[in-house]
Amino acid sequence: MGTLVDQFNAYRSKMNEKILGSDNKVMKRIYSVDTLTYQDGALSSKVKEMLGLVSSMVLRCDDCIKYHLGKCYELGVTTEEIFEIFAVANVVGGTIVIPHTRRAVEYWEELTLG
Amino acid sequence: MGTLVDQFNAYRSKMNEKILGSDNKVMKRIYSVDTLTYQDGALSSKVKEMLGLVSSMVLRCDDCIKYHLGKCYELGVTTEEIFEIFAVANVVGGTIVIPHTRRAVEYWEELTLG
Amino acid sequence: MGTLVDQFNAYRSKMNEKILGSDNKVMKRIYSVDTLTYQDGALSSKVKEMLGLVSSMVLRCDDCIKYHLGKCYELGVTTEEIFEIFAVANVVGGTIVIPHTRRAVEYWEELTLG
Amino acid sequence: MGTLVDQFNAYRSKMNEKILGSDNKVMKRIYSVDTLTYQDGALSSKVKEMLGLVSSMVLRCDDCIKYHLGKCYELGVTTEEIFEIFAVANVVGGTIVIPHTRRAVEYWEELTLG
Amino acid sequence: MGTLVDQFNAYRSKMNEKILGSDNKVMKRIYSVDTLTYQDGALSSKVKEMLGLVSSMVLRCDDCIKYHLGKCYELGVTTEEIFEIFAVANVVGGTIVIPHTRRAVEYWEELTLG
Amino acid sequence: MGTLVDQFNAYRSKMNEKILGSDNKVMKRIYSVDTLTYQDGALSSKVKEMLGLVSSMVLRCDDCIKYHLGKCYELGVTTEEIFEIFAVANVVGGTIVIPHTRRAVEYWEELTLG
Repeated sequence: MGTLVDQFNAYRSKMNEKILGSDNKVMKRIYSVDTLTYQDGALSSKVKEMLGLVSSMVLRCDDCIKYHLGKCYELGVTTEEIFEIFAVANVVGGTIVIPHTRRAVEYWEELTLG
Repeated sequence: MGTLVDQFNAYRSKMNEKILGSDNKVMKRIYSVDTLTYQDGALSSKVKEMLGLVSSMVLRCDDCIKYHLGKCYELGVTTEEIFEIFAVANVVGGTIVIPHTRRAVEYWEELTLG
Repeated sequence: MGTLVDQFNAYRSKMNEKILGSDNKVMKRIYSVDTLTYQDGALSSKVKEMLGLVSSMVLRCDDCIKYHLGKCYELGVTTEEIFEIFAVANVVGGTIVIPHTRRAVEYWEELTLG
Repeated sequence: MGTLVDQFNAYRSKMNEKILGSDNKVMKRIYSVDTLTYQDGALSSKVKEMLGLVSSMVLRCDDCIKYHLGKCYELGVTTEEIFEIFAVANVVGGTIVIPHTRRAVEYWEELTLG
Repeated sequence: MGTLVDQFNAYRSKMNEKILGSDNKVMKRIYSVDTLTYQDGALSSKVKEMLGLVSSMVLRCDDCIKYHLGKCYELGVTTEEIFEIFAVANVVGGTIVIPHTRRAVEYWEELTLG
Repeated sequence: MGTLVDQFNAYRSKMNEKILGSDNKVMKRIYSVDTLTYQDGALSSKVKEMLGLVSSMVLRCDDCIKYHLGKCYELGVTTEEIFEIFAVANVVGGTIVIPHTRRAVEYWEELTLG
């Protein structure tokens, strides 16, 4: 994996540990509900990660986008599918989503090209 | 279909006509891109409508939610799947999505129970 | 003026009085800064009201949209110009702005057709 | 309590039951984390409800505002304090929060005047 | 032009090419509608770019702000006018717009001072 | 204080001076209303800064979060209390607040550990 992916994962892990290391029960439960949400159910993990990705895009959260791109990559979402998700996000969310799409494309390239 | 569904569709059609009846080229193109977005491609229409639904929920747009619920219903999305989409939206978007989920449940009931 | 306009103005006036009637200095100052903002300056009131309108649309605040539509109407903004503002709002903010545009069109019709 | 309060509570209860009545585990957990969040801890319930209120205002969720106003009222927050919370919300979130403040004032009056 | 401007333009061009280089028809159409939106019409390009700028500010998208600042500069918007647009954005959108205004001022200085 | 805190404060001061140095009356008044908002009143400065912090978190403004964390630190808010504010923000605003919480934890550590 390239630099962007490594940096994102390293910072994410380090800070998640600190958050979970605090004694805040609510934060812990949020993390565990979050994990539960994307597990296979009536909808597959794959579809749920796509739902997570498009939500992150319209809400314009770069880190959330990176996380779900990583998951989509692991679960075998193709580049053509990823661009269709980008399309939905840009249509629903408007041109303010474009700058986030630029960064998403860069990150996706790193994931797929290594 | 029940009252909520009928009212929503009637108002939507009436006002869309007025918007398209104006001579604004940009608005017309937005409508046509919108239609294009949800057509079968690498991802099915069904998955794309789910993407549209979850986006509408995290952005908290009741009318957009109603529209995509209607489309999901037509395309055979099940109640169990709908609730899993609601779950993603509420986890990503937080408890401020709950009031919109309440109204979504009411609308979905009307769609499914007639 | 039609029903929508009257109802909006009546409720707005009644509740603004209550807010200003409270002894909260910050709220009072916000109201006075708000008034100052839209006065003629390097940019005309008219352009500033258009800026207020497009901001209200992308932030999807129906009451704010109504208020600025009323001001735009008073200041002589034409229907063609209004639709170009709607176009910018829908391109920047995406299709989630469409339901607000529908209601804006309805309100604008009442303003212009009486 | 007046009409607005009763209507809000009735619809909220009815739809919450339907959501919890579904077999969606994620939704159930969100509800239980939500309850946990506002319990006495390092910060009192009262301060936490104020935090919930101001968050709901800047995110412009009328139903969330109503809910937290109800809780604040039960916990003895005064009208003067409520207006200071409104002030923070309007300063941080801008004049687009004003229409929500109008409706919040109306609801608060019903809570306090019965 | 200074460093910030150059970096922004270079990254923007590079990634836009990749997005347009994908075979996604929706993304292409969004780009072409976007171009159409800001052309002279009932409103001048100049006013439309101001509308784009204020929308980008209240939606707090730094890259969108930079883009529209660049366009406003090309079209002869003055510093005094720019600050009046900032004022509308900060009043409508609240103090959360201030950090974006800081970065906007820095970028505008680079545009105007070179 | 560590690097993050110093950098934030330096840039903030420098750019605020430029904004206040412009002749824009509206911007000046926004700054003065902002100061007024957080002064002791029916609610203490401390509670108001907590309200400012949680608002900044749900609106996902990293710079605003940093500013209010600095103020909370000065006013004696404890780490346990800070995490309870984070908890409210993450529950109300959803998992998209998590990346901002990560950065908030890092900044808070610098404030408290020096």
